[in-house]
Amino acid sequence: MAQISNREKLLQAGLDLIHEHGFGATSVRDLVRAAGVPQGCFTNHFASKESFGVEVLGRYRAEKRADAHQTLLDDNGSPLQRIRAYIDVRTERFKRNGMRCGCMFGNFAAESSTESEAIRQELLDIFAENRAAMAYCLEAAVRVGELPEDFDCDETAAFLLSSWQGAILSAKTQRDVAPIERFKKYLFASILH
Amino acid sequence: MAQISNREKLLQAGLDLIHEHGFGATSVRDLVRAAGVPQGCFTNHFASKESFGVEVLGRYRAEKRADAHQTLLDDNGSPLQRIRAYIDVRTERFKRNGMRCGCMFGNFAAESSTESEAIRQELLDIFAENRAAMAYCLEAAVRVGELPEDFDCDETAAFLLSSWQGAILSAKTQRDVAPIERFKKYLFASILH
Repeated sequence: MAQISNREKLLQAGLDLIHEHGFGATSVRDLVRAAGVPQGCFTNHFASKESFGVEVLGRYRAEKRADAHQTLLDDNGSPLQRIRAYIDVRTERFKRNGMRCGCMFGNFAAESSTESEAIRQELLDIFAENRAAMAYCLEAAVRVGELPEDFDCDETAAFLLSSWQGAILSAKTQRDVAPIERFKKYLFASILH
Repeated sequence: MAQISNREKLLQAGLDLIHEHGFGATSVRDLVRAAGVPQGCFTNHFASKESFGVEVLGRYRAEKRADAHQTLLDDNGSPLQRIRAYIDVRTERFKRNGMRCGCMFGNFAAESSTESEAIRQELLDIFAENRAAMAYCLEAAVRVGELPEDFDCDETAAFLLSSWQGAILSAKTQRDVAPIERFKKYLFASILH
């Protein structure tokens, strides 16, 4: 079995710790300790904590991209059902940690977008990618007649995703899935028809 | 003119610094320096940084409560116009700092609700109060016939406010009012009718 490099151990520890505690509350000392790597290791592999944060965000992004490929971007099945599946897949992930951690995109946006321009730019890129994936699925819904022909897919994708982040943030604060269930209810009853 | 106490100076500095940089990124040293008070002053007045955070959040809450009293809870005028006014008043405040800082409620929720139970409880209390104020205004809209009689005011208030936090978070990341304008558009076109 291939050995996991110290760099990789740090990134994996970073994904967990930063998701749970936030970027600011996670120190380099915490990371090194959780990864079980030598003290000086961090600076050998990362130019700064900020650049480490950007890489961790990229890892999380790759996971979420896989979720989108299996749902929003999968051309089989009802497009509106694919949106429902996307929400459900992500919700199952949130439930694994008792809804406590929320979405790392939203957490970084709230905590770090004023402090780090590199993190903010990564987030803008992520949000644009997510918006495009959601709009792609909404356009498919228009094509199969699940949404009306004049439906504004791009604008609705943007609204839907920011509203979704708000629902996740409420769910995280309450440690309860109710805000996400409510979001789904309003989304399908009032927006996507 | 009455002298401002050191305690008050620290709280005022805390409101500005924590709103701009976040709770974690604001150190006690930053607070003491910005407030221009002696070094030991912080621990004389506050049991911990966490309890200071709860007080700062309470200050911010009092400001937002005044906004709600002038709009959502003011019994004069069209209730739906009062909701519009509430959003507009808050948006003007966000614009003052170039949309960079967002809403302190959302920022604390994302950053501190996993780390501090005291802050999380304060946020739950704030969100419940805001939900009640919004539901009050929606009920008034039902009474004057701006919304249908079977409108679910309490559920819609909860959805609306979490969606609103998501819009603010997007606006903060983008440093652009567009997500808030979009939220308003969907709110009045698809939810409140």
